[in-house]
Amino acid sequence: MRIIKASLSAVACAAMLAASVTASAVEPEDAIHYRQSALGVMGWHFGPMADMAKGDIEYDADAFARHAQNVGDIARMPWEGFVEGSYQDDGHGVETDALAKIADNPDDFEKKQKALIDEAQTLAEVAQEGDFKMARAQLSKVGKTCKSCHDDYRAE
Amino acid sequence: MRIIKASLSAVACAAMLAASVTASAVEPEDAIHYRQSALGVMGWHFGPMADMAKGDIEYDADAFARHAQNVGDIARMPWEGFVEGSYQDDGHGVETDALAKIADNPDDFEKKQKALIDEAQTLAEVAQEGDFKMARAQLSKVGKTCKSCHDDYRAE
Repeated sequence: MRIIKASLSAVACAAMLAASVTASAVEPEDAIHYRQSALGVMGWHFGPMADMAKGDIEYDADAFARHAQNVGDIARMPWEGFVEGSYQDDGHGVETDALAKIADNPDDFEKKQKALIDEAQTLAEVAQEGDFKMARAQLSKVGKTCKSCHDDYRAE
Repeated sequence: MRIIKASLSAVACAAMLAASVTASAVEPEDAIHYRQSALGVMGWHFGPMADMAKGDIEYDADAFARHAQNVGDIARMPWEGFVEGSYQDDGHGVETDALAKIADNPDDFEKKQKALIDEAQTLAEVAQEGDFKMARAQLSKVGKTCKSCHDDYRAE
């Protein structure tokens, strides 16, 4: 089962890369709306885990695991919305924080996507153990991959 | 692995039901934005599969499988955004097509959620086979679960 999942994951990655090349037929407005939606869904699920990590709300192992699973799944999705012509100052008229330098650094941007996808997948697995300290530590790693990309490619 | 996934799924369902009860602390505006985002992401991935099914674009087994996996995953997510006070005419001032009768029929609404989740999960599995006719038939089943819920609970 793990082998099937891994090979599916490889297929999905290849398809995702293919999609990121061909998806420029998509309207920039639609791509922006899509990626903002996917990132918003990720944020919705990240929030309660961060609140638990900070001690603002009590650790609930089941809820944490559910949110982690969702973040792990949706982490694969936003990237096909980052298409040519959909960045800041690209003249599409839609508000976006995605800097145009993303288009100039596709390899680095993909590396950062992959870091998030991998760390979020690990979070989904770690969270199933129900150990707060382990879950919190892995959540922090996920958060760092978010920040690493935001620092370089998101408007302040 | 299948057993672990099944039990995780049960945990996730239980947590989801719990969340739908407790999540009324969430602001209606945020819940609406969240569920619309999740449903929008689902629609983004459903679209190309429907185009393939209709013959508008060529069947691409890898792309179909990737979109199906994403729909299978995100199908679990929108429902926690359907919270008390977030329906049409609930006075929150946000545009939503979600009819207030959802709140009066929680069991039926949950049954319809579960139908989508199950059929979408099956689609993700079937799509891996790479057989167009099978994939198309299962996509149609997923579409019927969408329609069944929209017919009853979404404004025209």
